[in-house]
Amino acid sequence: MSLPRLLNRYRPLIIEGLAEALQGASLLHEMLRYHMGLDNKSDMGKLLRPSLLLFVTEELGGDPEHALPAAVGLEFVHNFSLIHDDIQDRDHERRGRATVWSVYGIEQAINAGDLLHSIAMTQVLRANHGDSTLALLCAQELVEAIAEMIEGQGLDLSFEREEIDIDSYMEMIDKKTGALIRCALQLGALSAGASTEISHRLKELGKYLGRAFQIRDDILGIWGEPAHTGKPVGNDLLRKKNSYPLAWAKGQDPGLQELFRHDPVPTEEILSRLETTGARTAAAERVASFSKRTQKLKEGLPFSPDGHNDMEELLSFLTERRI
Amino acid sequence: MSLPRLLNRYRPLIIEGLAEALQGASLLHEMLRYHMGLDNKSDMGKLLRPSLLLFVTEELGGDPEHALPAAVGLEFVHNFSLIHDDIQDRDHERRGRATVWSVYGIEQAINAGDLLHSIAMTQVLRANHGDSTLALLCAQELVEAIAEMIEGQGLDLSFEREEIDIDSYMEMIDKKTGALIRCALQLGALSAGASTEISHRLKELGKYLGRAFQIRDDILGIWGEPAHTGKPVGNDLLRKKNSYPLAWAKGQDPGLQELFRHDPVPTEEILSRLETTGARTAAAERVASFSKRTQKLKEGLPFSPDGHNDMEELLSFLTERRI
Repeated sequence: MSLPRLLNRYRPLIIEGLAEALQGASLLHEMLRYHMGLDNKSDMGKLLRPSLLLFVTEELGGDPEHALPAAVGLEFVHNFSLIHDDIQDRDHERRGRATVWSVYGIEQAINAGDLLHSIAMTQVLRANHGDSTLALLCAQELVEAIAEMIEGQGLDLSFEREEIDIDSYMEMIDKKTGALIRCALQLGALSAGASTEISHRLKELGKYLGRAFQIRDDILGIWGEPAHTGKPVGNDLLRKKNSYPLAWAKGQDPGLQELFRHDPVPTEEILSRLETTGARTAAAERVASFSKRTQKLKEGLPFSPDGHNDMEELLSFLTERRI
Repeated sequence: MSLPRLLNRYRPLIIEGLAEALQGASLLHEMLRYHMGLDNKSDMGKLLRPSLLLFVTEELGGDPEHALPAAVGLEFVHNFSLIHDDIQDRDHERRGRATVWSVYGIEQAINAGDLLHSIAMTQVLRANHGDSTLALLCAQELVEAIAEMIEGQGLDLSFEREEIDIDSYMEMIDKKTGALIRCALQLGALSAGASTEISHRLKELGKYLGRAFQIRDDILGIWGEPAHTGKPVGNDLLRKKNSYPLAWAKGQDPGLQELFRHDPVPTEEILSRLETTGARTAAAERVASFSKRTQKLKEGLPFSPDGHNDMEELLSFLTERRI
């Protein structure tokens, strides 16, 4: 599948930055290159967050080269959390390859994630070189987002043991998924020296984009076509993953929670009850409404005509994507 | 046991800083307060690293209040690594209390460590307020030390599966233990605006102090009196922990490694062979020689007369301590 233009625009630059930052002869560096797909240039993911950061920087009149270390740092933050999440969820596969912990063991995978966290900080502290006030602001913005992301992950894990309602779900994804997406846009604004008003608008856009993106992800995790996602239908139900459709359905059908105590989880039964309660439609409508808000917020941003088109294509891609 | 004066001098200030930085209502914050002993002011450890940092700052003419966030951040870095180390080693007890993972589970303990890592960075980015160049330098110094510490931990884990010689052992502890001790002294020098020459001397002092401290720790882990350490004789042998005496003895007695494949590990037999090879004496001599170097390096530093006395007392305490 071809990527939207916005995700291709800075991809070579970002990959170069990632590779340069992960040179090093130690076992942990080898593990990190493996995780990032840098060892054989295999599936490296969409690189959404650094692409957004550099796009916003350039569209608002900044220099993407100066902002590159911040973009690389942000992508590393996302990936250190993936390495640790995979341990927590005992997931064996990511992006079509065995997860780091399943190849190298849990102990070293904890270290690898920790090292990537620190390399991310090394990178962002180097951003906008020569301007230490700006580098400091970027680093502060990033650590704030990291703390929020981790708190979101903490909420997600603690919710797995209790009923989750829509409000708790929204709080969780605003932190777990939203924090880094908002941060991407904020770091772009900072690097370009944008006004407070523009920065605030981007933050709002990031909030709704994060929500639309995550709920779309939830839908794909339950109803995604195996041919596109590479995973069986109902996969996230088997994994007892918190999701918008479930949080919504539990409000309508309080007995639903009970079904997750069965072993194995009766996915057919749950899928049928999700349809009955209208959870799938409710989730799709929520994505559409958040997506509409992102489009509206985007209109007020001083992007170039091409920039507006690229951003619009990206927003559609993220909220209608099948993978 | 009474602490050396240097460790008491800033202790209330540091504890206040730690507590203030860990306010927060989430489960993860609660876990962190528990780990730090802040929930009931139980054993909070020696607070060696932040004490050294503030001592050096003040003795070299800086303001400890300005350097406090860096000191708090450094202590958090040490503690995030302890939380993750305890998971990796499956240790059930630390400072007389159940370890975080054994109370809250491995999954949330990984998150708690990650959160503490990010809070540490938040703190150091706030150091020497108003002077962003200095704050940036402190943050860069700290992330460099974090990366080194994690690489040392990576080495330690990978050595557990192979024979370790003295050179590998020294490389490992220079990173795992030495990095943060050197960093404490360096951050003190930075906060006081010390000269390159003084900074370099402090780095050297930190290197030898880290070595003496760790090898003394190794000796206590094997031969420490249960009444003082709270652990059985030979405890670190049972845990198959890498240590100087073992690395040294393996050079003299290649068959020693074989004994660690037995289950349970025959600690009596290993203890006797460590005595025969003279490993205990060799380790003690090494501590004494590194300790002497720290005393000599200290002489060239422009501390106050009281400062010199306090530092001398601390160095003796750390290299002769029984706990």
